[in-house]
Amino acid sequence: MTIRIGIMGYGNLGRGVECAVKQNPDMELAAVFTRRDPKSVKILTEGVPVYRADEAKNMTDRIDVLILCGGSATDLPVQTPEYAKYFNVVDSFDTHAKIPEHFANVDKAAKEAGKIAVISAGWDPGMFSLNRAYANAVLPNGTDYTFWGKGVSQGHSDAIRRIKGVKDARQYTIPVDSALEQIRAGKTPKLTTREKHTRECFVVAEEGADKARIEHEIVTMPNYFDEYDTTVHFITEEELKRDHAGLPHGGFVIRNGKTGWNLEHNHVIEYSLKLDSNPEFTTSVIVACARAAYRMKQEGVSGCKTILDIPPAYLSAKSGEQLRKELL
Amino acid sequence: MTIRIGIMGYGNLGRGVECAVKQNPDMELAAVFTRRDPKSVKILTEGVPVYRADEAKNMTDRIDVLILCGGSATDLPVQTPEYAKYFNVVDSFDTHAKIPEHFANVDKAAKEAGKIAVISAGWDPGMFSLNRAYANAVLPNGTDYTFWGKGVSQGHSDAIRRIKGVKDARQYTIPVDSALEQIRAGKTPKLTTREKHTRECFVVAEEGADKARIEHEIVTMPNYFDEYDTTVHFITEEELKRDHAGLPHGGFVIRNGKTGWNLEHNHVIEYSLKLDSNPEFTTSVIVACARAAYRMKQEGVSGCKTILDIPPAYLSAKSGEQLRKELL
Repeated sequence: MTIRIGIMGYGNLGRGVECAVKQNPDMELAAVFTRRDPKSVKILTEGVPVYRADEAKNMTDRIDVLILCGGSATDLPVQTPEYAKYFNVVDSFDTHAKIPEHFANVDKAAKEAGKIAVISAGWDPGMFSLNRAYANAVLPNGTDYTFWGKGVSQGHSDAIRRIKGVKDARQYTIPVDSALEQIRAGKTPKLTTREKHTRECFVVAEEGADKARIEHEIVTMPNYFDEYDTTVHFITEEELKRDHAGLPHGGFVIRNGKTGWNLEHNHVIEYSLKLDSNPEFTTSVIVACARAAYRMKQEGVSGCKTILDIPPAYLSAKSGEQLRKELL
Repeated sequence: MTIRIGIMGYGNLGRGVECAVKQNPDMELAAVFTRRDPKSVKILTEGVPVYRADEAKNMTDRIDVLILCGGSATDLPVQTPEYAKYFNVVDSFDTHAKIPEHFANVDKAAKEAGKIAVISAGWDPGMFSLNRAYANAVLPNGTDYTFWGKGVSQGHSDAIRRIKGVKDARQYTIPVDSALEQIRAGKTPKLTTREKHTRECFVVAEEGADKARIEHEIVTMPNYFDEYDTTVHFITEEELKRDHAGLPHGGFVIRNGKTGWNLEHNHVIEYSLKLDSNPEFTTSVIVACARAAYRMKQEGVSGCKTILDIPPAYLSAKSGEQLRKELL
C-alpha cells in the first residue's frame, strides 16, 4: 500500500512536493489541484491528473494526505482548517507569531473531522524548531541563536521590486561570520539585529531610473533593511538571470549551555543547513511529515500536530527495527 | 508533582545525572543506589539517601524513573531487563551492534511489567542517531557521515593503560579536517578509516620502561590503532593531571543529499557537538529521556523505546503551547 498524496497549489512548493514524492517509493502522487485552469498547468509526473481546486472535496477516497502548497499570508489560514475537514493535511505555515492561532483553528477542524493536520512543516519552522526544542530540553541552562543564510529572502526581494524604477531584484541574507565564530567558541553575546546578519541586494533598474534614489529607498526601508548593513549592486537583467536564478538558503541553530554542579562545563550544539533549493528542501520535510500524518491517522490519532509532536521514527520509511540497526 | 528520579550506580554518569536533575525544577533526586558500601559514597545533593543496590526493589513507590548508570559491556545487558520489571528505566547502552538484542530483551521485560524503558540515551547513540534518522527521512537520496572528536576515548585510553610499562594514558580521537571540508562542500567521498580520524595519545611511562616498545605496541594495536595515523607523546604524570584531566568530546553528523526532478540540487545537513564534559552531556540527554518516559507511562504506554520513538515535545519541560510560541 503506497501513501496517496494530493497537491493543492502548483507553484514552487507544489513542484517540490512532486519531486520529493518521486524519491519516496512508499508514496505516489494521486492528483494535483489548482486555482488556475487545469488545462494550463503542466506537471512533471506522467499520467497524474490535474483538477480544479474545488473538485478536491469529491476525491476524499482517493487521497490519503493532501499537501497544501499555498502561502502563509492569505491562503493557509483559510485553506488548512477548511481542508482538514475532508483530508489529512500538511502545510508549511511559517508566520511564527501566528502559529498559536493557526494551530487552534486547525486543531478544532481536524478533531471534529477525525483527521490529522500537520502544520508548519519545513525548516524554519520545522527542522530548526526541532533543533531548538531538543537543545533546550537537553541543556535547560543556555542561550539560543538562530542565523539565516546565506540565502535568498523572497520577502525582501519582493519588497525591493515594489520600489519605483526597479525591474527585478534578488536579496541575499548573510550571517555575520564573526558573530558565528564567537558563539561557536562558547561565548553568549547579546547581538543586535545589525550584528547578526547583513543584506546584499542585486537590482535591475529600469532604463533611466535614478539609481541613487533606489539605493537610498532600499537601505532606509523600515523593518526590511533599516536595521541592517545593506549593500546594493545594480546589474543587468541578463546577469540576474545568469547568476541569481536559484533559490538557495540555509542557516544555523546554535545553543550554548552549561552543565555541572556549579555550571562549570560548557557545551555547544550546532545544527546547520546549506540548501541549493529552499522550496525543494522545505517540501522534502513536508513529505516526510505526510508519511507521519498517515501513520498517526492509522493509529487513530486526530487533531493538529507540529513536527515537535511527531515521533522521529514516523517520518522515516524505515521500520523501527531497521532504524535501530542502521541509524541508532 | 515533581518527577522522582533514582540513580543506580554512582560513577561519572551517576554524578552527571545528579547535576542534571538539579537543573530541571520539574524533577527531584529521590535516592542513589550503589554496589559499594553506601556509607563510603558521598553524593552532592544534601538530604538524599544512598542505599545498597539490592534495596532498590523495595522502593518502587518512591521512584518514578530509575536511571541505570552502569556500563554497556556487562552491567546494562543484565540490569536494564531486570530493573524494567520494577521501574520505568532509562539507560545509555551504547554497543551499537548489540542494540537490537538489548531492545528485544528490555522490551519483553518492560511490556510484561507495564513499564517504560528508554534505552541508548545519550549522544551516540542518542542525539547523533536522531540527526541521522531525520536527515535520512528528509533526504532519502544521500550519503551519511559521522565523525567523532576532538575528544577523549575512554576505551582507547584503557587499551593503552593495559600495555606493560604504561602508568596512565589519555587518547584523543580527532576528525580529519580536510575530510570534513570536502563533505561540507557537498562532496560524497568514500573515506577509509585512516582518512576520517587520527588518534593522539598522551602516555605516562613507568620509570625505566622502554618507550620505543610502548609506542610500537600502541600504533600497531589491532582494532584500536593499526588502521589510524597515531601520534604518541610521552609526558609526566603531573602534565597528564594538569592538561588532560577533563573528558571533552563531540563530533559531527553530516548528510549530503539530492533533490529535484533530476536530482539537480544538493543539500548539506550538519549537526555538531562540542562538549566540555562527555558524561555530563550524556546524562543531560538521559534526564530529558526520563521526563519523556514518565509522560509516556502516564499515557499508558509500555515497552522499550529509543529516542527515535519519543515525540520531541515529551523531552521538554515546556508545555506544547509554550513550545509552539517560543521555539517553533
